[in-house]
Amino acid sequence: MVTYSLPSHQPPFAVRLRRRAADIRSWLCVGLDPDLERLPDGISRDASGVEEFCRAIIAATHDYAAAFKINFAFFEVLGTAGWAALDAVRRAIPDDVPVIADAKRGDIGNTDRAYARAILEVLGFDAVTVSPYLGWDSVAPFLGIPGKAALVLCKTSNPGSADFQDLPVDGVPLYMRVARTAITHAGLDSAPGEVGLVIGATYPDALRSVRALSDGMVFLVPGVGAQGARAGDAVAAGANARGENALISVSREVIFASPDKHFAEAAGRAAQSLAAETVRAPTH
Amino acid sequence: MVTYSLPSHQPPFAVRLRRRAADIRSWLCVGLDPDLERLPDGISRDASGVEEFCRAIIAATHDYAAAFKINFAFFEVLGTAGWAALDAVRRAIPDDVPVIADAKRGDIGNTDRAYARAILEVLGFDAVTVSPYLGWDSVAPFLGIPGKAALVLCKTSNPGSADFQDLPVDGVPLYMRVARTAITHAGLDSAPGEVGLVIGATYPDALRSVRALSDGMVFLVPGVGAQGARAGDAVAAGANARGENALISVSREVIFASPDKHFAEAAGRAAQSLAAETVRAPTH
Repeated sequence: MVTYSLPSHQPPFAVRLRRRAADIRSWLCVGLDPDLERLPDGISRDASGVEEFCRAIIAATHDYAAAFKINFAFFEVLGTAGWAALDAVRRAIPDDVPVIADAKRGDIGNTDRAYARAILEVLGFDAVTVSPYLGWDSVAPFLGIPGKAALVLCKTSNPGSADFQDLPVDGVPLYMRVARTAITHAGLDSAPGEVGLVIGATYPDALRSVRALSDGMVFLVPGVGAQGARAGDAVAAGANARGENALISVSREVIFASPDKHFAEAAGRAAQSLAAETVRAPTH
Repeated sequence: MVTYSLPSHQPPFAVRLRRRAADIRSWLCVGLDPDLERLPDGISRDASGVEEFCRAIIAATHDYAAAFKINFAFFEVLGTAGWAALDAVRRAIPDDVPVIADAKRGDIGNTDRAYARAILEVLGFDAVTVSPYLGWDSVAPFLGIPGKAALVLCKTSNPGSADFQDLPVDGVPLYMRVARTAITHAGLDSAPGEVGLVIGATYPDALRSVRALSDGMVFLVPGVGAQGARAGDAVAAGANARGENALISVSREVIFASPDKHFAEAAGRAAQSLAAETVRAPTH
């Protein structure tokens, strides 16, 4: 019989994240996307190499990371050994940093409850990215777990996000409808801070429009760096008036900052530099 | 270094599926959703029990299954041992039956390519369910692999599917826009038969509307049984005039047909009975 234990009375995810960001003065989320083909020299191109690489990156960037985000795809591609590495890497992250599962799950009923349990309880992640296409009843099973959160895809950073997310529904883009639904339910059904949104830095207008609807909701903001947006611009568009709640996720520019044996030091320097771009003085 | 080998010159997924369905006179897809809490008496409630259970169900239902569908959530919830069981169960299915990964993935760029490789190459599934919310550039990486297919969520079987999928875009529900996009791209970019759609049996009008747009596209049709729809009605609404291409997916009513030690025989009888409901004479 499999059993699960959870810390009780954990503060909400958003509260823990804001505390961490204030403590270290950083809204940077370090994204662990250990693409096998881009691992530095001297790291073996297998699951044990991925684990070794991620442990070194975590140690080097921890001081600048308001959160870590682990991308499941680069572990799943390594099969069973990859899943074991995923488990090990998640546990290698100190308890003082919230850890996000970038898994983009979303299903129905008992299937969805199994995903929520797998990611938030068994693997012990603090939050998980969730696709809204199936509707709110596919998001709800990820809520109600003390200290945990669901980060709902809203306006994603890729060009193809225009295909459906931008379609006009009663004159408003679909992603605004998703945002409003999430904000409404976050007020009605959820503990404060257990629902967030994913909005790409590549769409600053979307960041501004959705931020205008909610000061308190956490946005996970990918798209800085390789995808062309700048961290400071993303904070300007996505943070609230106190400079909070826009968690700027950067992966490749940090973890692959150097292709040689000094990759960890280079990652630390990149994270430090980016972290400085994610804080700004309150505007009031 | 991880390497992958693929059979070359495999016929398209849809062609293999239609051949199998014609050979055994069944459009039934047996869904392997091994919920730990519902395993029969005498099966251990852990990954090895899940594997044993699934192997027995596969053996008992194989003759009536046009395809199998494996639900990733119930393996992921068991951690690393669960992923190993997923791999073993997939490989336990004979080569003559296409196997669908019900994983509902969908991401961007190199992440999406890693998911496609993980599921269609490393695990060796024949098709995978994909969420369209991120846009067509998140579906495309699952295409172009010989013999494989992406089954794109269109109108899902749950009540919450109304939240976004039914929203009117230029007077037409969003799911119809998703269907048209998939059908257009299936013609433009894809080998025939490497794009399918997921449409719930609980929405026969959606099945009819989308079928009217495409005779040749495979629909994966969940929602029969526990969710209230009947297999015969789903075929009537979703199959083409030759009675093809509506793959009726049933999980709980087959695999949990009996809670005692005779579960496999009961599953076989349930699959045989349902299979008979999935075929109908051509209407022309």
